[in-house]
Amino acid sequence: MQRFKLTIEYDGRPFVGWQRQDNGPSVQQTLEEAVFAVTQAKTLVYGCGRTDAGVHAEGQVAHVDIAKPLAAFRLQEALNAHLRPAPVAVVACEVAAPDFHARFDCTGRRYRYDIINRRTPLTWQSGLAWHVARPLDVEAMHTAAQILVGRHDFTTFRSVHCQSASPLKTLDQLDVVRTGDRIAIHAAARSFLHHQVRSMVGCLKLVGDGSWSANDLRRALEAADRTALGLNAPPDGLFFASAHYG
Amino acid sequence: MQRFKLTIEYDGRPFVGWQRQDNGPSVQQTLEEAVFAVTQAKTLVYGCGRTDAGVHAEGQVAHVDIAKPLAAFRLQEALNAHLRPAPVAVVACEVAAPDFHARFDCTGRRYRYDIINRRTPLTWQSGLAWHVARPLDVEAMHTAAQILVGRHDFTTFRSVHCQSASPLKTLDQLDVVRTGDRIAIHAAARSFLHHQVRSMVGCLKLVGDGSWSANDLRRALEAADRTALGLNAPPDGLFFASAHYG
Repeated sequence: MQRFKLTIEYDGRPFVGWQRQDNGPSVQQTLEEAVFAVTQAKTLVYGCGRTDAGVHAEGQVAHVDIAKPLAAFRLQEALNAHLRPAPVAVVACEVAAPDFHARFDCTGRRYRYDIINRRTPLTWQSGLAWHVARPLDVEAMHTAAQILVGRHDFTTFRSVHCQSASPLKTLDQLDVVRTGDRIAIHAAARSFLHHQVRSMVGCLKLVGDGSWSANDLRRALEAADRTALGLNAPPDGLFFASAHYG
Repeated sequence: MQRFKLTIEYDGRPFVGWQRQDNGPSVQQTLEEAVFAVTQAKTLVYGCGRTDAGVHAEGQVAHVDIAKPLAAFRLQEALNAHLRPAPVAVVACEVAAPDFHARFDCTGRRYRYDIINRRTPLTWQSGLAWHVARPLDVEAMHTAAQILVGRHDFTTFRSVHCQSASPLKTLDQLDVVRTGDRIAIHAAARSFLHHQVRSMVGCLKLVGDGSWSANDLRRALEAADRTALGLNAPPDGLFFASAHYG
């Protein structure tokens, strides 16, 4: 038996999310079916982050145990062949330690949230970014975002379905960067609460369009109360960017 | 009657191309139906470039005559409302001179061709870039591309269906730029032959993967013979970037 670490890219649009669910195809199930096609063995694929329906990944990480003797490169090629035509691809595959765990060993997660800020509706970017028509003040957003950086009780920014033991998290980075009409929000932490990135982005959007001041954001954080949340951003613009280990 | 200049963005995937055809929906028809919905008048929309099936645009330009009194901004908003859910959007709309012609007055056209150069299959970029698995030498491609810049007989790079009076064209720019695994090829000219950009990109890909030398490209150009073409790139990666006037 050999454990492998997989780095995975996917388009979240056709999926109910990362995790297996009864109501539709998941990324996990799609990967497990590809593993079965390659190995003829029912195998679980353990992911680093459970992305929601419609959320994408550039660098989701997962681990999987394979009994069939296969070099990492061959496994990657075989999985990618069987994943077609699903929009899921293994971008890297390497042998991992027998006790490597994609979720529990992860020491840093990065997400990117893409906004397209223009009046014109989206065309090919539809489903891959949040379309915000009102002009956003990116400087105000970035400045306010720094209020959220550090160790806080993020209850306000936490889904009622969140299974985390504690609402206390340390946010390492929250940068807001504009390139033309595209605004990218980069978030980094050891781990995030369920909906935390989307909830932070939703509130930063309110700051950007002038509905909220930076102080409103601070009060929402300090309330530590989900009902103080201004807005939860849609899944469309969210990408699981990368996971770090060790 | 007022003539307007429209700048248009679209995802080419669901369309048979820019031009009205009997075998499926075209971008032109989609726009003309939106104009009809706004004005109740059957109106022709004249485009700057007739993009093929599956080719996209960030800055296609068209002109249209509108009898109904409408400010440019209102026309843009109304067209975008009626274009939904088609992946076509008017990104700019301005009043034009009564004799302005999107095609005949155009003095410069820019196309961009996107390649994703990696073994891993595409996910959300599928249909929006050409997937090339073999590693491409971008420096060799860019150097060879300069052979094509200038005034030449581009018969080799011309579709048999091309309606241009002459195969002589002046290529002003052909730059090949890599950013990570994405390779962008920027082409600029007053006008292009049918399939010229895709044919140039196809041959540059052969240079990039080592199948062709720069001299092979030069010989293909000098042959002035369509059968000397190495490869026509697929429509997926091609974007009509912008059109210039005056």
